[in-house]
Amino acid sequence: MPSRRFLLVSMALAAWLWGATAHAQTDPLPSWNDGPAKQAILDLVRSTTEPGSPDYVAPPDRLATFDQDGTLWVEHPVYSQVVFALDRVVALAPEHPEWKKKEPFKTVLSGDRAAIAKLSLRNLEAIVFATHAGMSVEAFNATAADWAAKATDHRWHKPYTELVYQPMQEVLALLRANGFRTYIVTGGGQAFVRSYAQRVYGVGPSEVIGSSLETGYDYDAKGQGELIREPKVQLNNNNSGKAEDIYLFTGQRPQAAFGNTSGDREMLEWTTAGGGKRLGMLVLHDDAEREYAYGPAAGLPDTKVGTFTPKLMDEAKQRGWVVISMKDDWKRIFAFEP
Amino acid sequence: MPSRRFLLVSMALAAWLWGATAHAQTDPLPSWNDGPAKQAILDLVRSTTEPGSPDYVAPPDRLATFDQDGTLWVEHPVYSQVVFALDRVVALAPEHPEWKKKEPFKTVLSGDRAAIAKLSLRNLEAIVFATHAGMSVEAFNATAADWAAKATDHRWHKPYTELVYQPMQEVLALLRANGFRTYIVTGGGQAFVRSYAQRVYGVGPSEVIGSSLETGYDYDAKGQGELIREPKVQLNNNNSGKAEDIYLFTGQRPQAAFGNTSGDREMLEWTTAGGGKRLGMLVLHDDAEREYAYGPAAGLPDTKVGTFTPKLMDEAKQRGWVVISMKDDWKRIFAFEP
Repeated sequence: MPSRRFLLVSMALAAWLWGATAHAQTDPLPSWNDGPAKQAILDLVRSTTEPGSPDYVAPPDRLATFDQDGTLWVEHPVYSQVVFALDRVVALAPEHPEWKKKEPFKTVLSGDRAAIAKLSLRNLEAIVFATHAGMSVEAFNATAADWAAKATDHRWHKPYTELVYQPMQEVLALLRANGFRTYIVTGGGQAFVRSYAQRVYGVGPSEVIGSSLETGYDYDAKGQGELIREPKVQLNNNNSGKAEDIYLFTGQRPQAAFGNTSGDREMLEWTTAGGGKRLGMLVLHDDAEREYAYGPAAGLPDTKVGTFTPKLMDEAKQRGWVVISMKDDWKRIFAFEP
Repeated sequence: MPSRRFLLVSMALAAWLWGATAHAQTDPLPSWNDGPAKQAILDLVRSTTEPGSPDYVAPPDRLATFDQDGTLWVEHPVYSQVVFALDRVVALAPEHPEWKKKEPFKTVLSGDRAAIAKLSLRNLEAIVFATHAGMSVEAFNATAADWAAKATDHRWHKPYTELVYQPMQEVLALLRANGFRTYIVTGGGQAFVRSYAQRVYGVGPSEVIGSSLETGYDYDAKGQGELIREPKVQLNNNNSGKAEDIYLFTGQRPQAAFGNTSGDREMLEWTTAGGGKRLGMLVLHDDAEREYAYGPAAGLPDTKVGTFTPKLMDEAKQRGWVVISMKDDWKRIFAFEP
């Protein structure tokens, strides 16, 4: 018969092991350091899903929206969709000999990085119209998915689709496990993001809202109906467009919204203006070592992409939005890092 | 010990009972008569969901789209949304004394049914702009839901929301039980239909695509963000708009589409032009006794609403779409009837 002491030690050890396991199993945000940002997410989930909570939300009404570039994945120093569009210019150039003499295509084809970096938004729109329109929706989707599966960035030499923030993947998973639908609400191209969103984020195409081109209904050579992408903006899913399009697509106001620039301002405003418990969060890029540090709210030079302005920081404080410091709040940035 | 004969009789009885129960459990379309229409629906489900089927579709890709007026519920002799809009003119008239002298409001307020029936589409648009815009999206939703819960029709004296075709409810349920998402794709107002679609069809607001007004982002008196409905058409979800908007909202092409007029033509064309097994179905209103008979394809006078033209009937034959005869294919029309 074992001694009383042996039994007590065994029980204590078992309890410790059980506790450690239980803790590991019940921390749904292991890549987050403890702090107000992590706590705000856990609080939202608890108060909207616990039966009897005054802020309880019925499962069909649970909705959370996420900006993509700079919020779910790297946007610096250039949006991956811009790289895609430039790559398409190069790929399509043989069919367009006139581009050799025509701007902005001439600059893109020159390969002069400094000149390319100076292209205006108007130039980029012309490039998008030339490379993202004039084909069936299925043909574009296949081209975009193929690019996303292969193209790699210049710092990590990984596919762009691996430059996803692991802490945000955990937020998506936690919310979905608690009955939330998780929508991507991107200023980027809806069709581009849809081409990889299921694989990368587990977000299906009907849960991606983005800027879009008109489609036109036509008939192919066999007399079959088809949809052709047209060089005309349909939805500009930035700024107030984000709030408007979330309502257009879902008929609902989210309980939580995540962004990182003033392009996400109205989405956060509209979300947090709803009754009951709401959460607005902004990712601050302040980790030059593990990712990038940029933007005036971090006391750093402004850049072409992702503008987290001091004014947005002021509004965050005023409205109670929670700022996520990549440096302080995230234990780990990418899944491929230890 | 029971006799051998008793055992055999018992076993036969048990087998018969089990078979009858199993049959009752496995007929998912009890309001449909056996025939090609019912068979076409069962065939679609089997061939897209049975593992190993050459036309198997993975669950996330399963999508079916349904026109509403005349396909899921009664549209004759007038769309219920038109009744709603006219009722809103009467309700809002005290705030608009100028309407007494201003067309088309003057005619609506006169109560002259013959004159009201002659209002043009342009008149109706003016009425929609005056009654469906100028308020927050939440305020409109509450008004519409309240109307839908109370307003009754003049033939059955039931709420419009009970004038839903029971056989189509069974199709919605069967498809959902087999992993399909079921979208309503209506020429009617998206916000109007969303206000009752969950309750009536089990279809949530994000699965209702309809004609829509622009929304504008504004701030209320407390400085909180809100969305205001504007008197400007955003999406005209009819004809080719149905195919275009299905793609805009879902990024997918349905496996099955259901309609009843030439406004549904492109939706059916685009759906059935996809690869693999596809199904296009058209409801023919040929049952004057239990519902209504109208439309030239039924050899009957054309009407203002729901035009099933002979040309659409020709295309149905050419493309293999299946016509549902309300008279022959449906055992029962409404849930409230025996």
